Amino acid sequence: MVIVVFYQEKVKNSLSNSFNFKLISNDKNARLGKLITAHGEIDTPIFMPVGTAATVKAMYLKDVVSAGAQIILSNTYHLMLRPGHETIKKMGGVRKFMGWNKPLLTDSGGFQIMSLGDLRKVEEDGVTFKSHLDGSKYFLSPKISTDIQNALDATITMQLDECIPYPASYEEANRSMKLSLDWALRSREAFEHRDGYGQFGIVQGSIFPELRKYSAKELIKIDFDGYAIGGLAVGEGQELMFKTLDNTTVFMEENKPRYLMGVGKPDDIIGAVKRGVDMFDCVLPTRSGRTGQAFTSKGQVNIKNSRHTLDTRPLDNECFCFTCQNYNRAYLHHLFKAQEILGLMLLSLHNLHFYLGMMKLIREAIKNKNFENYERDFLKNYYSGDIQPL
Amino acid sequence: MVIVVFYQEKVKNSLSNSFNFKLISNDKNARLGKLITAHGEIDTPIFMPVGTAATVKAMYLKDVVSAGAQIILSNTYHLMLRPGHETIKKMGGVRKFMGWNKPLLTDSGGFQIMSLGDLRKVEEDGVTFKSHLDGSKYFLSPKISTDIQNALDATITMQLDECIPYPASYEEANRSMKLSLDWALRSREAFEHRDGYGQFGIVQGSIFPELRKYSAKELIKIDFDGYAIGGLAVGEGQELMFKTLDNTTVFMEENKPRYLMGVGKPDDIIGAVKRGVDMFDCVLPTRSGRTGQAFTSKGQVNIKNSRHTLDTRPLDNECFCFTCQNYNRAYLHHLFKAQEILGLMLLSLHNLHFYLGMMKLIREAIKNKNFENYERDFLKNYYSGDIQPL
Repeated sequence: MVIVVFYQEKVKNSLSNSFNFKLISNDKNARLGKLITAHGEIDTPIFMPVGTAATVKAMYLKDVVSAGAQIILSNTYHLMLRPGHETIKKMGGVRKFMGWNKPLLTDSGGFQIMSLGDLRKVEEDGVTFKSHLDGSKYFLSPKISTDIQNALDATITMQLDECIPYPASYEEANRSMKLSLDWALRSREAFEHRDGYGQFGIVQGSIFPELRKYSAKELIKIDFDGYAIGGLAVGEGQELMFKTLDNTTVFMEENKPRYLMGVGKPDDIIGAVKRGVDMFDCVLPTRSGRTGQAFTSKGQVNIKNSRHTLDTRPLDNECFCFTCQNYNRAYLHHLFKAQEILGLMLLSLHNLHFYLGMMKLIREAIKNKNFENYERDFLKNYYSGDIQPL
Repeated sequence: MVIVVFYQEKVKNSLSNSFNFKLISNDKNARLGKLITAHGEIDTPIFMPVGTAATVKAMYLKDVVSAGAQIILSNTYHLMLRPGHETIKKMGGVRKFMGWNKPLLTDSGGFQIMSLGDLRKVEEDGVTFKSHLDGSKYFLSPKISTDIQNALDATITMQLDECIPYPASYEEANRSMKLSLDWALRSREAFEHRDGYGQFGIVQGSIFPELRKYSAKELIKIDFDGYAIGGLAVGEGQELMFKTLDNTTVFMEENKPRYLMGVGKPDDIIGAVKRGVDMFDCVLPTRSGRTGQAFTSKGQVNIKNSRHTLDTRPLDNECFCFTCQNYNRAYLHHLFKAQEILGLMLLSLHNLHFYLGMMKLIREAIKNKNFENYERDFLKNYYSGDIQPL
């Protein structure tokens, strides 16, 4: 009889530290900070890998950690449908369930529900929707979403908000932003305060500066532990996103973390850091990894392209990840052509390493008051295009 | 600029040792041995994980090694079609291509071609077949198969043989066995002898003792470096397979390794070891791992069964693998219900650990002249069925 101590069981559920954000230094608007939570500290700016269904797809968690992840994100919508938040609660929360021993943020479920189209109906009290899995009907209110995230034992809980598409009229954006503000208040009231746990409000208002300003200022009155910027990267383009960020972060509290939801490509992240954003999440590194798209210091590489068939060079000569240290492009190309799972594993690992390595360099650059140089060099290299074929 | 030394490039292509099999001891008919090759030593009895397309599906090679693998198998048929043996030759062989630093065996391509049905035509000179990928036409003769395996740089090359289905008439089995004998001779003639590399002949003859005897004795005259037993585990059932093994191994050379192709379930392997077999390969541990079937000390477990939804116990309390040490059945169940890649990864890893752990215990038992006790205890436990639901 072997005494088994699960990796899952090594996950701490006890809390010691208060939820607290320390602004360490800045380089113009770019900020270096530290977020202290019940489940560990997070150096900001940080990128949060997405673990939709309580797993960062095609990756072992030890490799997620090795890549530099300090916090991951899980999706309330997906988990409430499968395996169900009651099941996860019985298992001790998402972190214990999946064996993740660091902080975890859950979204509110709102974003996925908004993208269900005809399958959902938004009303003042909340949103009714049908599961994409089996069509069964659900209702999500600010309180229900908050309660579910509590059951999931999320280190960081997000308010329920409405995320409208781009473009939206001023009137529609105004109506929706005010609904989200109302939901913010009700989400905050439903939040169960626990030492080291936090809840974020979400600034909305599409691309309209006065709406963003209003939303940011009203949310501050509710007094969240951090603030997200929602409703961006929904088709408005990088230029308009950056402009909206300029018009938003300036009205956000300085001593609270700022989280730009669902962003983005490497150059989006760098531009947002420059505008004072501290936290990011995006499916891109893992999703692209599963479709054969690699992020490299010289831009994106489609490993399925036949130019790689006999290419004995690594994906990225500047990368220290397991994939780049051990496999050449020819082998990765073969794995994708043969639809082998190892291809998805190796490329997801590389991409996450690239993203989190970039965040580390961003933090270094801010610390050294060298962010503008870093940005210029990164972008020059990133936009230069892939190495020439052999 | 980073100097990259690929894991792939650490693979040895040089040879130092002669290909050599040492019979260390025996416990009745069960044999403990050591196979010495250009690419490393192999303790027998051994199980060879299958790496069909130059990857052991859904596994990192470091985990294949950790599980105890000393040699893996790749499929000539799949590799000649994709990426093509010429490509692999340019990449330095399969081992270098995939970064496998130990011995590798390739089959002849015959078995896969035989299962193509209408897509193939067997004649005296060889077999014409159409690719299952794009329908393009190929011809495989004993010499071509041997040359391809040479291009793949296989440590162990298999002769081209014909593998007929069960049941087969005596006449059909006799004709086919003699064709395979002819192909054996021509395969041997085509084999390029290199220090530490070997080639195996394949005993055929369906379930007919006199045909097996004839095949075994004629192959010995050709003088291969080892001998396989083909044409079993094709539907004849365990009892008839064991009986045929009894009637075959007795006519095989004692000082050469004996390899039972495509076998099998854990109890098949134990029964074959008892009858003097040294080497095995099978897709079962990895393929079952991808369909939610786990091998445990108490038999097979279907992790997709809803009884596991809230089960906080490991797959197998007696298992020391990464999966069983870190994750419970509830989480594995969730991963399979949500069709998450991590589920395939964790179960493949567990199953391979189970198989290779069993082989290690088998070797220990033979060494300690305790094989019959081991067999009895293993089978009693294995047939006892899964633990009761919580």
